[in-house]
Amino acid sequence: MGSLLPYARKHKVAVIGSGNWGTAIAKIVAENTASNPAIFEKDVQMWVYEEKVEIPKGSRHYDPASPLCQGPQNLTDVINQTHENIKYLPGITLPANLHANPSVVDAVKDSTILVFNLPHQFIIKTCEQIKGKIVPYARGISCIKGVDVQEEGISLFSETIGKILGIYCGALSGANIASEVAQEKWSESSIAYDPPHLDSKAPSPNRSPSSSTVDVVHFEHKDVSGQLSRVKLQALPSDYPPVDHAVLKSLFHRPYFHIRVVHDVAGVSLGGALKNVVAIAAGWVEGMGWGDNAKAAVMRVGLLEMVKFGEKFFGATINTRTFTEESAGVADLITSCSGGRNFRCAKLSVERKQPIWKIEETELNGQKLQGTLTAHEVNKFLKKQGCEDEFPLLTAVYRILEGDMSIEDIPSHIER
Amino acid sequence: MGSLLPYARKHKVAVIGSGNWGTAIAKIVAENTASNPAIFEKDVQMWVYEEKVEIPKGSRHYDPASPLCQGPQNLTDVINQTHENIKYLPGITLPANLHANPSVVDAVKDSTILVFNLPHQFIIKTCEQIKGKIVPYARGISCIKGVDVQEEGISLFSETIGKILGIYCGALSGANIASEVAQEKWSESSIAYDPPHLDSKAPSPNRSPSSSTVDVVHFEHKDVSGQLSRVKLQALPSDYPPVDHAVLKSLFHRPYFHIRVVHDVAGVSLGGALKNVVAIAAGWVEGMGWGDNAKAAVMRVGLLEMVKFGEKFFGATINTRTFTEESAGVADLITSCSGGRNFRCAKLSVERKQPIWKIEETELNGQKLQGTLTAHEVNKFLKKQGCEDEFPLLTAVYRILEGDMSIEDIPSHIER
Repeated sequence: MGSLLPYARKHKVAVIGSGNWGTAIAKIVAENTASNPAIFEKDVQMWVYEEKVEIPKGSRHYDPASPLCQGPQNLTDVINQTHENIKYLPGITLPANLHANPSVVDAVKDSTILVFNLPHQFIIKTCEQIKGKIVPYARGISCIKGVDVQEEGISLFSETIGKILGIYCGALSGANIASEVAQEKWSESSIAYDPPHLDSKAPSPNRSPSSSTVDVVHFEHKDVSGQLSRVKLQALPSDYPPVDHAVLKSLFHRPYFHIRVVHDVAGVSLGGALKNVVAIAAGWVEGMGWGDNAKAAVMRVGLLEMVKFGEKFFGATINTRTFTEESAGVADLITSCSGGRNFRCAKLSVERKQPIWKIEETELNGQKLQGTLTAHEVNKFLKKQGCEDEFPLLTAVYRILEGDMSIEDIPSHIER
Repeated sequence: MGSLLPYARKHKVAVIGSGNWGTAIAKIVAENTASNPAIFEKDVQMWVYEEKVEIPKGSRHYDPASPLCQGPQNLTDVINQTHENIKYLPGITLPANLHANPSVVDAVKDSTILVFNLPHQFIIKTCEQIKGKIVPYARGISCIKGVDVQEEGISLFSETIGKILGIYCGALSGANIASEVAQEKWSESSIAYDPPHLDSKAPSPNRSPSSSTVDVVHFEHKDVSGQLSRVKLQALPSDYPPVDHAVLKSLFHRPYFHIRVVHDVAGVSLGGALKNVVAIAAGWVEGMGWGDNAKAAVMRVGLLEMVKFGEKFFGATINTRTFTEESAGVADLITSCSGGRNFRCAKLSVERKQPIWKIEETELNGQKLQGTLTAHEVNKFLKKQGCEDEFPLLTAVYRILEGDMSIEDIPSHIER
């Protein structure tokens, strides 16, 4: 393990994003940089999209004499002085070595490990902002759930980030509800990380012999639509601990947050997308009062279709055991079908006899359901591939959302 | 499919056992013999362990003028006249072609398909009673959940039945709660059936050439402890439809009860045993209030250990995808960890701070928890094999039951 060897330099870590999941992950990361001083610099920068907040009366931070309580304040100032993200993760004390920074460029400066935790719609814009302003040999981990499904193909957010920034980026996903993780309730998560053999000591046939000081490899990637991308990847200088599975585990694993590191980035990412579609079906079945057997049946078929989707569209680049063995697969599916947002809204839509978008409006406080969106995107993709019939559950969810099928038809539709 | 060909004879079906699961299965079987007249004789015999019952006042069958309501009556008479098993499956109307029979020997007479659905402790005794009194070329399906785990090895109930009777016996198991199935709420189940190639038309290298009229094969089986058994199996006369996967599906599949037939008898049987141990752990975690993430983590690790148990002790004779793909695997695990009896008692034991045997006493009305029993048996077996450490969750459940570990230690114990 790299951490046992003496290295002249340490990794500096930045977290990009500070919603409730972003802040929960930043808390973990800062706890671990503090407890692994041989590998990491203690201080962690967290980029916070600046906004004005007021500390409410009755808050444990409220003190009428404090300048922080004189009207609206910058969220970053409040986080840095109270060590609490009062807006997005209230009630949780953050480590003192975690620093909120309103400038994303400043937050990522000199960082060798970048942890991405942003809403889907801000990924590209944020990456464009920091492009060329990061350490060229930085490595990334995307904690952004799901994948980007278009009619033409599927791309992984970790790859989008990697391509824009010219770095390698892995993925973290699992059966994790941010608030439970923040409260240090025990859970597990999966990290997928599989860079070309560049940071390891083993010789790599892809390693460019062109330079003896800066090691470069051309990392080629073909996505589902067949588009080939070529990323020039720069090796980490040898005075840093190599960013390997052990180092990533040191950065994310906590006694209450168990990490397994695997190689299958596509599997880990895909699980986090498709399970939301299955959770909608499970919510409908529960809302219908069909009982636990029926719900288990829908989840079983959903898991099968996740495996099949991976096999069919990602082939050998995916390990289907990720779906059945890792937290990002079966465990995340189970959690999402127990009490996740997609499950709950689908269940309510049956109980109240209202369309799910109506429930979304009244229950989610302006937030959007990921499952309905993914169901539509996945269906567009499957239709284009001519494969709707091979994925009867994914297809049924889409058709029911569209009003072209009724929930009562699910059993006969998925029967085989 | 055999059912499309014209055969001179039809299969006669008997159900041995009439508890709530036995009666629910008998209902399905009788519905299917009635709707598949080309393959099956319509009338189905169900062996009922005779006892005296009284039709309660207020029952829909209560009529003070009826002879059936004059004091205690035979359960078989009540079932045959009211078409309801008022003792074990009250409120469910049974098909008129299902006949309760107090004599097991008479019930199985001339039957070519025997469906076993008995409590574990009655299997051997009942089989001994009918040994030599059944059609020699009968085939069996065991609906008895679980496996028989001893320190020395593991045997499947289907094999025990097959050995005693000298017939081939498959297994049915799945995410099925008897009362929900009886109410025709939709669920799925798995049948595993993999006899030597005797009933099929394909030539078999094992087929004995000794007789041209009665085809006989010697079916060898080595169990986990290495004990070899040899069953002389008699071929079905060719004027019967062969008992193949399609015929079994015709006998058990209903619009509300979806059957997948597979070959893996060991996997289907083992899933039904080990999931009860996992359900105890899930109940504890829920009782502790650790949240959905933690429960999903325990279930994930449980599923992994089920797969590993199969791989390690059954080797190539098991298909580990049974655990992750079939109703008898992951779906049954999910149902059992949602509201099954083992889950509920474990949860209550934490909430009430009482040992689980105390909860068992007060909550189960004299019935026994399968999960605690299996946890002990499995541990004895694992200890003998020197493999406790390789199955940390199964081992943790045993140790907590024994008072040698606390529930709080589960996360660190199963961490790897």
